[in-house]
Amino acid sequence: MQTLLLNSEDVHENANMAELVPAVKEAFAAFERGDAQMPPKSYIDLPQYNGDFRSMPAYMDAGDWDAAGIKWVNVHPDNEEQFDLPTVMGTMVYSSPETAFPLAVMDGTELTMKRTGAAAAVATDHLAVADASSLGIVGAGVQSYTQLEAIATVRDIEEVVVSDLDEERVARFIDAFEDEFDVRAGSIEEAASCDVLSTVTPVEDPVVSRDAVGDHTHVNAMGADAEGKHELADEILLDAKLVIDDHEQTTHSGEINVPYNAGVLSDDDIYGAIGEIVVGDREGRTDEDGITVFDSTGLAIQDVAAAHIVYEHARENDNGYEFDLLGLAGRGN
Amino acid sequence: MQTLLLNSEDVHENANMAELVPAVKEAFAAFERGDAQMPPKSYIDLPQYNGDFRSMPAYMDAGDWDAAGIKWVNVHPDNEEQFDLPTVMGTMVYSSPETAFPLAVMDGTELTMKRTGAAAAVATDHLAVADASSLGIVGAGVQSYTQLEAIATVRDIEEVVVSDLDEERVARFIDAFEDEFDVRAGSIEEAASCDVLSTVTPVEDPVVSRDAVGDHTHVNAMGADAEGKHELADEILLDAKLVIDDHEQTTHSGEINVPYNAGVLSDDDIYGAIGEIVVGDREGRTDEDGITVFDSTGLAIQDVAAAHIVYEHARENDNGYEFDLLGLAGRGN
Repeated sequence: MQTLLLNSEDVHENANMAELVPAVKEAFAAFERGDAQMPPKSYIDLPQYNGDFRSMPAYMDAGDWDAAGIKWVNVHPDNEEQFDLPTVMGTMVYSSPETAFPLAVMDGTELTMKRTGAAAAVATDHLAVADASSLGIVGAGVQSYTQLEAIATVRDIEEVVVSDLDEERVARFIDAFEDEFDVRAGSIEEAASCDVLSTVTPVEDPVVSRDAVGDHTHVNAMGADAEGKHELADEILLDAKLVIDDHEQTTHSGEINVPYNAGVLSDDDIYGAIGEIVVGDREGRTDEDGITVFDSTGLAIQDVAAAHIVYEHARENDNGYEFDLLGLAGRGN
Repeated sequence: MQTLLLNSEDVHENANMAELVPAVKEAFAAFERGDAQMPPKSYIDLPQYNGDFRSMPAYMDAGDWDAAGIKWVNVHPDNEEQFDLPTVMGTMVYSSPETAFPLAVMDGTELTMKRTGAAAAVATDHLAVADASSLGIVGAGVQSYTQLEAIATVRDIEEVVVSDLDEERVARFIDAFEDEFDVRAGSIEEAASCDVLSTVTPVEDPVVSRDAVGDHTHVNAMGADAEGKHELADEILLDAKLVIDDHEQTTHSGEINVPYNAGVLSDDDIYGAIGEIVVGDREGRTDEDGITVFDSTGLAIQDVAAAHIVYEHARENDNGYEFDLLGLAGRGN
């Protein structure tokens, strides 16, 4: 057996959203059912480099298939300026649960974007109005693209409003999607009044006000990934049907971490976890619901689910580069 | 920047023991000084496949150099019989601590053998008699080779006695080393009477008796890696100057785990950690010492130290295969 190496382009090309979104949904369901294992992220803090490493091992069993692996990822905010490298880089080792053979090593950065988009789509599928056709995006950075790619697989999105202070980024986003959608630049208020809103910014002070959000808008709050970060005004969270991916992670570093730790928002304000909705233990949107919010921090099970889809497609398409990493070519049934 | 892929042969060729042993010594020292980070191993248990995964992230700072990375490794005892694959396979991602760029992905199986040999050599250097010239090895499996390779860099080994019930394995071992050393097959007793003894077996019932061990023999107990395993009679451990690599790991799954958890051996019987000796906080062998024992379970910092040496040599020698895993070729200072 050999290990398949998949670079960022291979991951991009084989991350078929029509399959990746259901796979991530299976990951949430497996986690809820207790058919997943996800040890706590472990951190290596390197203050001397203003950076850290995180290891995210996971296993999930969807019934028809299962998947295991580990993502090794970092946050080094000075990278861009000092080293011409991204702040966040990820490497994913995707392994057979049955034998532990490393089936693939793949770019974990691209994978993260794909599985993050897919998580938003799973939440949108359960929480947005059924006839949602407009999507607002606040923040036109690298994570914004997969929001549209993924959400368009669960709702018939026609109109897209993208809001960012950086006009170049907005132009790039419009350029990427204008053939498929009616995409235009707009204010945060215009984006927030769409049927679905995804916020993908790194801000520490909320940029979306309560008044801006449409009466029945579903909001995917994707940006907050550290203590002190949040994108939405507290009033939005308090008024919304509020759904989280994981209690520990969201209260520590998700959208709700600031109001939660300030005592403004408590467990009583949290409706439930996306996994509970996916397995049917809680209802998604009902006719009575107004605003809904999904607080996504990103779980290791999403990575292994996404890696599974990417690997299977890459094998089918003969993509990637075979490498005899372990010196086991010729062995393995 | 591109990521260097190093297969098992590349790791073997670039794991220069003359540098790897000092690097592992630096790892023990850094750990003792508090200049290392090693989050607890996290496990994913898969009883349905009779296997598990372990993730071993680490960082160490030796002063002149530092190193970070993660080893993702498994134990699937049915692999050989059912799938023609090894029980244990490892994949190592070796990263720059400064930027977190994945400098290399390498075979972690070969790396584990190398760093395990190096750990035995560090202990031997501090605990064996200065003029040690004979080495006994009990168990002629894959881990036995690096015991000799590494220990020969710290003592002038001339005579080697190898003991294993499997004659083919003994013959292979002799064949590999007979040009360099006076190597012969022998009984466990003959091996145990050498100046240095390394035990590298997976047994659950001790195979080395108290009487067999020479009066001033240093023993590297390398084999035990799980609850219930031990290779040495309790009396050896109780009579010896007993040195461990890590308290938590050795009492859980090292050579001492069985007598420790049975109450036969307590913390009072443990002389200290190898790191304490390496940094000079405790003495190694003194004239008063008889038998010494090093209980090695293997630490994640050894892996990153070994990966550092392998990577640096591979770069110098232009070995390995450059792969643009993250799509960052052309970027990075």
